[in-house]
Amino acid sequence: MKPPRQESRLNGTLPITSPAAAANRIPDAATVLVSGFGSVGYPKEVPRALARADRDLSLTLISGGSVGGEIDVELTETDAIARRFPYQGRREIRNEINDGRIEFHDRNISTLGDEVRYGAFADADVAVVEAVAVGEDWLIPSTSIGHTPTFVESADTLIVEVNDAQPLELQRFHDVYLRKTPPDREPIPLGAPAESIGTSRVQFDPEKLVAVVETDRRDEPYTFRDPTDTDLRVADNLSGFLETETKQSKLFEESVRLQFGVGSLGNALMSALGDAEFGDKDLIYFGEVIQDGLLDLLDNGELRGASATSLALSAAGQDRLFENVDKYSEDVVLRPAALSNSPALIDRFGVISVNSALEVDIYGHVNSTHLNGTHVVNGVGGSGDFNRHSALAVVALGSTAADGDISRIVPMVPHVDHTEHDIDVVVTEQGVADLRGLSPRERAHELIRNCAYPAFRDELKDYFERACEADGHVPHDLGQVFSWDPGNG
Amino acid sequence: MKPPRQESRLNGTLPITSPAAAANRIPDAATVLVSGFGSVGYPKEVPRALARADRDLSLTLISGGSVGGEIDVELTETDAIARRFPYQGRREIRNEINDGRIEFHDRNISTLGDEVRYGAFADADVAVVEAVAVGEDWLIPSTSIGHTPTFVESADTLIVEVNDAQPLELQRFHDVYLRKTPPDREPIPLGAPAESIGTSRVQFDPEKLVAVVETDRRDEPYTFRDPTDTDLRVADNLSGFLETETKQSKLFEESVRLQFGVGSLGNALMSALGDAEFGDKDLIYFGEVIQDGLLDLLDNGELRGASATSLALSAAGQDRLFENVDKYSEDVVLRPAALSNSPALIDRFGVISVNSALEVDIYGHVNSTHLNGTHVVNGVGGSGDFNRHSALAVVALGSTAADGDISRIVPMVPHVDHTEHDIDVVVTEQGVADLRGLSPRERAHELIRNCAYPAFRDELKDYFERACEADGHVPHDLGQVFSWDPGNG
Repeated sequence: MKPPRQESRLNGTLPITSPAAAANRIPDAATVLVSGFGSVGYPKEVPRALARADRDLSLTLISGGSVGGEIDVELTETDAIARRFPYQGRREIRNEINDGRIEFHDRNISTLGDEVRYGAFADADVAVVEAVAVGEDWLIPSTSIGHTPTFVESADTLIVEVNDAQPLELQRFHDVYLRKTPPDREPIPLGAPAESIGTSRVQFDPEKLVAVVETDRRDEPYTFRDPTDTDLRVADNLSGFLETETKQSKLFEESVRLQFGVGSLGNALMSALGDAEFGDKDLIYFGEVIQDGLLDLLDNGELRGASATSLALSAAGQDRLFENVDKYSEDVVLRPAALSNSPALIDRFGVISVNSALEVDIYGHVNSTHLNGTHVVNGVGGSGDFNRHSALAVVALGSTAADGDISRIVPMVPHVDHTEHDIDVVVTEQGVADLRGLSPRERAHELIRNCAYPAFRDELKDYFERACEADGHVPHDLGQVFSWDPGNG
Repeated sequence: MKPPRQESRLNGTLPITSPAAAANRIPDAATVLVSGFGSVGYPKEVPRALARADRDLSLTLISGGSVGGEIDVELTETDAIARRFPYQGRREIRNEINDGRIEFHDRNISTLGDEVRYGAFADADVAVVEAVAVGEDWLIPSTSIGHTPTFVESADTLIVEVNDAQPLELQRFHDVYLRKTPPDREPIPLGAPAESIGTSRVQFDPEKLVAVVETDRRDEPYTFRDPTDTDLRVADNLSGFLETETKQSKLFEESVRLQFGVGSLGNALMSALGDAEFGDKDLIYFGEVIQDGLLDLLDNGELRGASATSLALSAAGQDRLFENVDKYSEDVVLRPAALSNSPALIDRFGVISVNSALEVDIYGHVNSTHLNGTHVVNGVGGSGDFNRHSALAVVALGSTAADGDISRIVPMVPHVDHTEHDIDVVVTEQGVADLRGLSPRERAHELIRNCAYPAFRDELKDYFERACEADGHVPHDLGQVFSWDPGNG
């Protein structure tokens, strides 16, 4: 049933055209769905042509995850974006969102594709998708899959960018599988994290395909900073905790299924696992992005398999992957974000998730998205999918921000993305707070003692004790709760 | 493969004993898992015997959901409970929790059984379970299943209360199915909401069974208040919204799968559905409790099937059910809470969920559990399972509390159980706010205009406009955000 391996990029009779002509197929106030996840696999030429067209655009722009500057910078700078869902990662668009000039709606990754499919969230006009190859009724995605399959299904028309700079061999990573919709939705027939159940192709109604554009522009991918001392100490505490936990728990007798959040800390934590002692257990990655740190683990033979929706690598990481597709494609599977982040699969595989956060409060509520509770950074991404559904949800972060001036352990987070019902363990460079089975007051003791930066512990204790002067299951002094935080003083 | 219908309550050689003798099998500082959900199907004699024993108890008490006064009142009043997870519904224990004298940990219902099974959340000593019949290695639950299958599996020893007041015919509702644990956990093989895939029996290792106690004490079930005018107007707005939505959405072309939260408002909303116009669509219930309102819909032929984990009926509702077991057991299935509340099943069936809340903020965050952010009421229960995973998550509540003195639409909820990423629609007696695809600022307009009580709208607008004077994706004036609320003034 699987299609043969695709040898040529352009197949059949295709409406090949220029980026400018393709951009002209997009109405001024269209809802545009773009491919891309983890800053890779996004369309580049058509967004750029849109930005350069002399038009009064007012687009609703929806991506599976973060995309490159051709979209979130160039279209922002030309005032082309009116609405943007559900995740972005660029200063230019973030500023517009925080100024209230672009309407932004932040969603959990796992369900975004369904929300678009079901129709009440957005009425999709055009999908613009990057591919390594295209035919009259199919395409093969490039460095990410994200929500491309549902986007292509939901949009009225389709524009494909075929990118020569993305190796055709990327098809060997892909496992495209599109679920039915409720009420006849089937269970996902995936038996193990790195198994394959689909094909390399996204199928579509040939009537939809209105333009195919050729390009050879590379992704504008992640740049990871070198791990800081704090990162390394967080990694060390995490490794120690995971070694003990995986020894004690029957869930991890034979294998350890792991997910790490996107970003420099996540990348550093992945790398550090190479030094951890997991005995002869298999390590398996079931997450949303493959970052450079995972390539290290694959090279060392520490990792038995990896499932994700995006190859969110640095430029050097992409080179390394592209030069060794044969080797890496044996162990790495890319799937739609609806599967990589599926609550049902995260639960079935018993994943240990490790995600970062902006701040955590003394009762275990987590803010992942909004500085000071008001200014969105990127979006919740997949952290909600993994924090809620993993067998063990770890939040890992440095205990301070702003060169130590601000504590990331606070009395009350001013924006909650993950509730006290979701988080099991918090790790900072100071230590580990295991919150499982603890009451809020007990959690406060653990978090202040084990995770807060020493210079802030007394202040946090003072707040907690003052709050406890009144009764309450979750003691708070609401009049003072945010004045504690230097950032809001 | 299914066991024959069970005709006798006591089967085989059983360690039948008195409640006091059974209670003596429970160590002073034991972790005790009790059956019960929705205030029914909980053990009565052994907890009472424990409360009356002259012992210095320090129990960790874990239930699937809410239980009766024999547990949460009598054991509280004798200081027998040191820790209590994850849900309670009685003033006596709530006061102790809010005074910090009982450690309480509030969890999502769907995963509690797994958390107990996996071991890091609690080390289970004894399960005390109500049954309608018991054998040497099996039992048949009574009016609720809840987490009984995992509790029985996880505890070292088992005490069964066989209750003559619970009809043996209750077995005809039961569909007990216990999943494997990760990483080899299978998809749940349930094809439709009211299908059966299990048996009436919970199996156990016969070595575990240390005591069987006989009783004929009835459940101390819910009392529903008569619907208020506000309830009826919320129900009316909800029905109108659901009529339109189910006409427009392809997801509900043939059937409408519904869940309603526990309580008097939920019960009133269920009843009111009988008057709604759903054309010839099948109505199907996929929730956690069967309340009296659902019996009305079943009697009227409006409802094609119902799946839950508890028959959370009033005393009159129980009589009605017990007298018509033949009729109701054709359409009603009781399953473990791990299935009734399964994220995967809620997603696969495309459920519309309707849950209440204490308050909602202008950006769509929801507080379901903590008055003033500090004082727990009952617990999050299954509201997180349904709000997060349903195809359409509706929060329904009256716009005011305290006889109109307090707005339930507030600038910022002081405790978040459900985030802006979870909630689609808010309904009050004032109207409907459809938040799908809206930015936080747009949500504020919708909620203030459509859902807030008119007398509070200007104050809310003032807050919002003041907050918007500073920038931010989610505008807030953190210094004043809680002083707005009369409850914290």
